[in-house]
Amino acid sequence: MKKDEFVKEITNIEEDFAQWFTDIVIKAELADYTEVKGFIAYRPYGYAMWENIQKYADNEFKKRGVENIALPMFMPEHYLTTEKEHVEGFAPEVAWVTQGGGKNLEEKLYARPTSEPMFCRMYAKWINSWRDLPMKYNQWCNVIRWEKETRPILRSREFYWQEGHTMHASEQEARETTIEMLNVYANLIEDLLAIPVIKGKKTNLEKFAGAVDTYTVETLMHDGRAIQAGTSHYLGQNFTKPFGVKFQNKEGKEEYAYHTSWGISIRLIGAMIMAHGDNRGLKVPPKLAPIQVVIVPIQMQKEGVLDKAKQLYNTLNSKFRVKLDDRDQYSPGYKFNDWEMRGIPVRIEMGPRDIENNKCVVVRRDTLEKIDINLDNLEEELEKLLEDIQKNMYNMCLENVKKRTTQAHNMEEFEKNLTENQGYIKAMWCGDDECENHIHEVTGAKSRCIPFKEEHINNKCVVCGKEAKHMVIWARQY
Amino acid sequence: MKKDEFVKEITNIEEDFAQWFTDIVIKAELADYTEVKGFIAYRPYGYAMWENIQKYADNEFKKRGVENIALPMFMPEHYLTTEKEHVEGFAPEVAWVTQGGGKNLEEKLYARPTSEPMFCRMYAKWINSWRDLPMKYNQWCNVIRWEKETRPILRSREFYWQEGHTMHASEQEARETTIEMLNVYANLIEDLLAIPVIKGKKTNLEKFAGAVDTYTVETLMHDGRAIQAGTSHYLGQNFTKPFGVKFQNKEGKEEYAYHTSWGISIRLIGAMIMAHGDNRGLKVPPKLAPIQVVIVPIQMQKEGVLDKAKQLYNTLNSKFRVKLDDRDQYSPGYKFNDWEMRGIPVRIEMGPRDIENNKCVVVRRDTLEKIDINLDNLEEELEKLLEDIQKNMYNMCLENVKKRTTQAHNMEEFEKNLTENQGYIKAMWCGDDECENHIHEVTGAKSRCIPFKEEHINNKCVVCGKEAKHMVIWARQY
Repeated sequence: MKKDEFVKEITNIEEDFAQWFTDIVIKAELADYTEVKGFIAYRPYGYAMWENIQKYADNEFKKRGVENIALPMFMPEHYLTTEKEHVEGFAPEVAWVTQGGGKNLEEKLYARPTSEPMFCRMYAKWINSWRDLPMKYNQWCNVIRWEKETRPILRSREFYWQEGHTMHASEQEARETTIEMLNVYANLIEDLLAIPVIKGKKTNLEKFAGAVDTYTVETLMHDGRAIQAGTSHYLGQNFTKPFGVKFQNKEGKEEYAYHTSWGISIRLIGAMIMAHGDNRGLKVPPKLAPIQVVIVPIQMQKEGVLDKAKQLYNTLNSKFRVKLDDRDQYSPGYKFNDWEMRGIPVRIEMGPRDIENNKCVVVRRDTLEKIDINLDNLEEELEKLLEDIQKNMYNMCLENVKKRTTQAHNMEEFEKNLTENQGYIKAMWCGDDECENHIHEVTGAKSRCIPFKEEHINNKCVVCGKEAKHMVIWARQY
Repeated sequence: MKKDEFVKEITNIEEDFAQWFTDIVIKAELADYTEVKGFIAYRPYGYAMWENIQKYADNEFKKRGVENIALPMFMPEHYLTTEKEHVEGFAPEVAWVTQGGGKNLEEKLYARPTSEPMFCRMYAKWINSWRDLPMKYNQWCNVIRWEKETRPILRSREFYWQEGHTMHASEQEARETTIEMLNVYANLIEDLLAIPVIKGKKTNLEKFAGAVDTYTVETLMHDGRAIQAGTSHYLGQNFTKPFGVKFQNKEGKEEYAYHTSWGISIRLIGAMIMAHGDNRGLKVPPKLAPIQVVIVPIQMQKEGVLDKAKQLYNTLNSKFRVKLDDRDQYSPGYKFNDWEMRGIPVRIEMGPRDIENNKCVVVRRDTLEKIDINLDNLEEELEKLLEDIQKNMYNMCLENVKKRTTQAHNMEEFEKNLTENQGYIKAMWCGDDECENHIHEVTGAKSRCIPFKEEHINNKCVVCGKEAKHMVIWARQY
């Protein structure tokens, strides 16, 4: 009874996925609304996931010679208007600081929605010769984008991300770095978040405002909508020319540097929730999980139970991220549901009879399978179990992608597929913006990417029937 | 000759300390000016020091049950004006966001100068009962204070810091946490930054706007001016009442929570520069140093030298933070000066003759002493050396404090001491704001703190001659 009641608090995932998502965010205490419209607060459990993502990514960046810096949050208005596509892309959604220290500012400042202009102006000071290149800097920071419609974690007016910007002496080297960093993201998302990705190139309509080429790692959610999980841009000299990032090349001539930028954001936590969760709540992949194992003592009031649980906690704590739930105001049943809802990968139940038999009951969150494990083998078994859960979560997610990936040879089929089995649609495309826009207007789907691994479906654009240039993956998106 | 030339680029430390400081910041590439007035950019070398401070502090916080969260950068105007002392303290120096997404905002937003109001409003949502307490949250973030006069690192309009805010069910527990966190700061500054601190309580005039009591760790710079290196505030119910942070206590009654807040900022790097540096430049304590050991090969063009240097780099790299300087456009002499200026604790010189003799020359930055070390013992010797440098730097700094600490029995002596030997002045004080203001007006010195270890000098206030309540430490400050 209590169990049912408890689960009812979360909206059914098949009935209203959007509300299910919001329920999870709030009830699992990942984040919360604030009194500033469109701005959310990250609570410890949600923020700890971001810290784990940061640690993983930062380590990969540093292995590749990337160094962290910190640039101003605010930039002068003329930075925004210097690059044509950039201003068109970002001007509508910036926040303006117009007063400081009790005075109106001479030139108003905008809060960074992304920092290409500031990175370039600083690189222009720091780079002189080809000997200074490549220069590979990154910053972990907050950015502001004044979105009209916001949703916690997925689309907030302030969000946390990293933006790496690298400068190179040649186009080739810059292009190689663009792909190298895309691969860092792909590996992070597959390995840490257990979400399979599709790597590819964005179409002209979907690329970053100011990029020559934008590459993306795309992920698919439980309901068949996509999330762009990370992007890496080859910016060429689009910013280095107007912002004056020059270097003397080996031949002694002045040349503009070749520029890349790449970013992932805290939105990844949103993707993780929506890729893995179920009707009981969140499922956190073990490698990401701030708490990997929770110990719930049964009949806690009985002599020796709590002591044994504490002892177990101390043993496991050096090897795993463990929590002991010794709250006395809640029943074990309540606790089981609570931790399941929060997505802890493994729960250990241990009562007087278990202790007598030198064992405990281990429950995995991914399959809800219960296993008796002898306490002597517990550490070893837990290690294997967590690895297995990580793999299994990836595979369950991949199953969903496979199930929800279809081909469309014409628009009728395109719409039918989206209605009956929303997900990725593979379809041929002639390369025209017009056909791409048509698909979006008619179906709500956008192009995700031209995948690195294109398949040949047929020779005709799914919209206009003219000769196709590429196979594109389409989906509705978050 | 070249050496002299090079060192001349840095202003003499005894002639113009302020300019010496700026020279170090720019030439050692810690930070740089940007085109936004009062905002600086942290370059990799400076930012890596902050990352090391963050790592150290964050670990100490987490050991004490503190969890990280992230709250909005912007707050609504009415948050600022809710607490009387807080608004008076911060309103003159906030930045205002008045437009977002192409529209004027209904209520303007201010960029956080500190986040007491936002923490309180969120705690009000998250705390219900005494069972939820204590709640100990921290955030690492950027804050904005629109200072009139700015100086790189020391006083910027945007700076990086952490602000911890804890909520407690009793005044006593909150007060204990206030001191506990102050001690974390004291240990960090002494252990990691090798700077001795004085712990104490701020006077009424110098306490945080809105605090019941402010505690501080004070540090003294090379020139005898002080820097407040960290503060910890007992805020009582000053914020929890107006912002509604209530809990049901064990007796079932509603009560307002007891609040602490505490912070250190990237300014600590400024303190480190000014406490340790000399005419050759920066001196970075080994525990903080992003580069602990630099290897400079001599006669690099000779066969085997670079190979041996690389081999050495690979051996040391697993144990120390090492850099191999294999730039071929600079002479060893240039490199020696360059790395001395950047404050690398240990330099290893190795040329063909050293290699023949299976040794290298090791130069410590703190004493400039040169030592021949056999390559077979190098790792072991380096470990000892770095420990010794860390200790020695602390002791050199402590010597400076001792040398520059005097007592004053009257204002004449007070002024004389400051003129002849600027530093900490110990003097008795009656407790009146007026006398404290008088000292500031006449001498430029401010009260640093009432130290935890008060000495008894005499019974009379150094200003008015009335009965003294406390011994206070005074100094001019940054």
